[in-house]
Amino acid sequence: MPAPLITLTTDFGLSDHYVGVMKGVILSICPRARIVDVSHGVGAFEIAEAAFTISQAYRYFPRGTVHVVVVDPGVGTSRRPILAQAAGQSFIAPDNGVLSMIYAREKHKVRAISSARYFLPLVSNTFHGRDIFAPVAAHLAGGIAAARFGKPMADYLRLDFDKPARTGRRAWTGAILKVDRFGNIVTNFSVEDFPDLDKGAFEMAVGPQRIGVLARHYAERGPGEPFLIVGSAGYYEISVGQASAAKLLGCAAGAPLELTLL
Amino acid sequence: MPAPLITLTTDFGLSDHYVGVMKGVILSICPRARIVDVSHGVGAFEIAEAAFTISQAYRYFPRGTVHVVVVDPGVGTSRRPILAQAAGQSFIAPDNGVLSMIYAREKHKVRAISSARYFLPLVSNTFHGRDIFAPVAAHLAGGIAAARFGKPMADYLRLDFDKPARTGRRAWTGAILKVDRFGNIVTNFSVEDFPDLDKGAFEMAVGPQRIGVLARHYAERGPGEPFLIVGSAGYYEISVGQASAAKLLGCAAGAPLELTLL
Amino acid sequence: MPAPLITLTTDFGLSDHYVGVMKGVILSICPRARIVDVSHGVGAFEIAEAAFTISQAYRYFPRGTVHVVVVDPGVGTSRRPILAQAAGQSFIAPDNGVLSMIYAREKHKVRAISSARYFLPLVSNTFHGRDIFAPVAAHLAGGIAAARFGKPMADYLRLDFDKPARTGRRAWTGAILKVDRFGNIVTNFSVEDFPDLDKGAFEMAVGPQRIGVLARHYAERGPGEPFLIVGSAGYYEISVGQASAAKLLGCAAGAPLELTLL
Repeated sequence: MPAPLITLTTDFGLSDHYVGVMKGVILSICPRARIVDVSHGVGAFEIAEAAFTISQAYRYFPRGTVHVVVVDPGVGTSRRPILAQAAGQSFIAPDNGVLSMIYAREKHKVRAISSARYFLPLVSNTFHGRDIFAPVAAHLAGGIAAARFGKPMADYLRLDFDKPARTGRRAWTGAILKVDRFGNIVTNFSVEDFPDLDKGAFEMAVGPQRIGVLARHYAERGPGEPFLIVGSAGYYEISVGQASAAKLLGCAAGAPLELTLL
Repeated sequence: MPAPLITLTTDFGLSDHYVGVMKGVILSICPRARIVDVSHGVGAFEIAEAAFTISQAYRYFPRGTVHVVVVDPGVGTSRRPILAQAAGQSFIAPDNGVLSMIYAREKHKVRAISSARYFLPLVSNTFHGRDIFAPVAAHLAGGIAAARFGKPMADYLRLDFDKPARTGRRAWTGAILKVDRFGNIVTNFSVEDFPDLDKGAFEMAVGPQRIGVLARHYAERGPGEPFLIVGSAGYYEISVGQASAAKLLGCAAGAPLELTLL
Repeated sequence: MPAPLITLTTDFGLSDHYVGVMKGVILSICPRARIVDVSHGVGAFEIAEAAFTISQAYRYFPRGTVHVVVVDPGVGTSRRPILAQAAGQSFIAPDNGVLSMIYAREKHKVRAISSARYFLPLVSNTFHGRDIFAPVAAHLAGGIAAARFGKPMADYLRLDFDKPARTGRRAWTGAILKVDRFGNIVTNFSVEDFPDLDKGAFEMAVGPQRIGVLARHYAERGPGEPFLIVGSAGYYEISVGQASAAKLLGCAAGAPLELTLL
């Protein structure tokens, strides 16, 4: 029987003791657990970025994996901790929309986590990653049935981060989902919804800049020339060869994008 | 029998090969070891921050865990490597005060590590994390008795990072223990020593700024308004909702704080 | 039988989902694998820095370790994925010179990876770390023989990062291999090739600055005074006590260095 697998996605960064402490809590409860970091570099309080991050990662993990997602500006308020089951995996998170892109992709069932017996004995108002989310994940990975953690709920928060709005017959307004380490700009125009960009002329507007080129790989175009490319996440990305498109274009996550099919 | 657990706390950062190399050394000596990063983002040479970091983490790990703490501006000098035993766990570090907050909290026994047979064959003057601390931790985790590494010592270095000084009948001078990723300011006023801040009026001075509000959770106060909160570390913290208190107040670790009970 | 060991060295950073996804792919194919991060903080597209990083790490890992190195500005072009075997270990990387410092140190055999059956079913043009390198590493670690991945090749790319050029009877021009987290400047003058710097007078020029002192440990010289030191990597380094030599001297990886023996 393989060891249970738990992943962590947070905005805690790696400079503090927070992530290490969550791992200590998990291994104290479920010593066999294997823990994989998806990312702790989600922008502080950036729920949309966290939603994108976990939506990109989960499908590459084995069935039965328990994913913990903690980007939680409302920690200590009445927002509920939830346990979602989807795609044969489990997701533990605050109910603030951070699992929205999982809900959009997969059949799912959501429970409100309420059984305090699976929390640490003392629950702070500032660090539920340690006091609630980590111990619940460890108990779940260790074999406690999902139903033991709380009742199914229907009114969980579901946000639409990744759907451009149609603004004309051949025009849409979208947004930047995130900027990655290389400065690639991940748009929320999915290849699935816009499959034919390579069939005709198009224009993607980012601020005053207009992009009309779709490249097949990063090294295809000259230096300093931005292009669209089919990103590994299934969305169109705006890139520049060996340089940061986000720096060149001066834009960040959340900024609007205009697509016109010519 | 569960696999032995080793944690790492350093100021090595994650950009270089240093941490990966320490893990290679550990796994070459003790292939069953499981290694957990507490943090490698301690400020370079910041002994007080490292002392705080490990003091926050150890209690969440299982008995028998071996903690390696390497913030070591004196590497290559005559400062000794030490092995401390406390709370059923082991701590391996340079003798520069980095374990002071463990000593303050737990009954402990300290040994000077002197048995070079547990070091790498060649010991550099610049990277004892690789050459001394990692291999000693791996041998200890693999079952070598603590006494084999060196003799007990009494004159280890013990520093007082976390005790505010009384400056009046109802006034204390403290300091900022650390600033976390979110810009929360961890003070060295512990909730244990100052349990009644919520019972009466108080004033915490940070530079020219005065704070007199104790919030229950981060989302309680309006944007831009700093408040005190009971932090997850057991110390009062100065925070601002969804923004960096340290940036707002322009202060960093080590800066003085004045508490007055009104 | 110990669990197979896979290390990762990339320029992906830790803010995005990329590294976590590679680990999910590996654990889906080879659930017993243990994964160790060497570094994901290699400068974006910095092949020389990645070559240095893996060359510093591999020798500290057990025989049989599989090292994955992905710094890959040419992803999606015709540059080949390769599998090198050296020192009883395996190295999986793009054929862009990133393994040059392994080739320089060890007898080695290189294969072109061509068996698409060991890739993910869909191979993107932008993320071969996920689609090719991670799954190939997992299959190799899981027991598939090296010969199954592709045929031996002789024309792999080999670059000379770490050999200063002789410019006079007692003068050499070298370069900065990398700057580490502490601001230590790793030169490409190896202690092996220049063993006698401590026997006579020398001068190392970095821009307008001249350094003529060899220290034994970091704490030996006064603050603000740069010195040479035998680094843990086997190269001379330029350092300053408890401060960043790179900041003080205003230099970065790739910058030229002049050594004169007086």
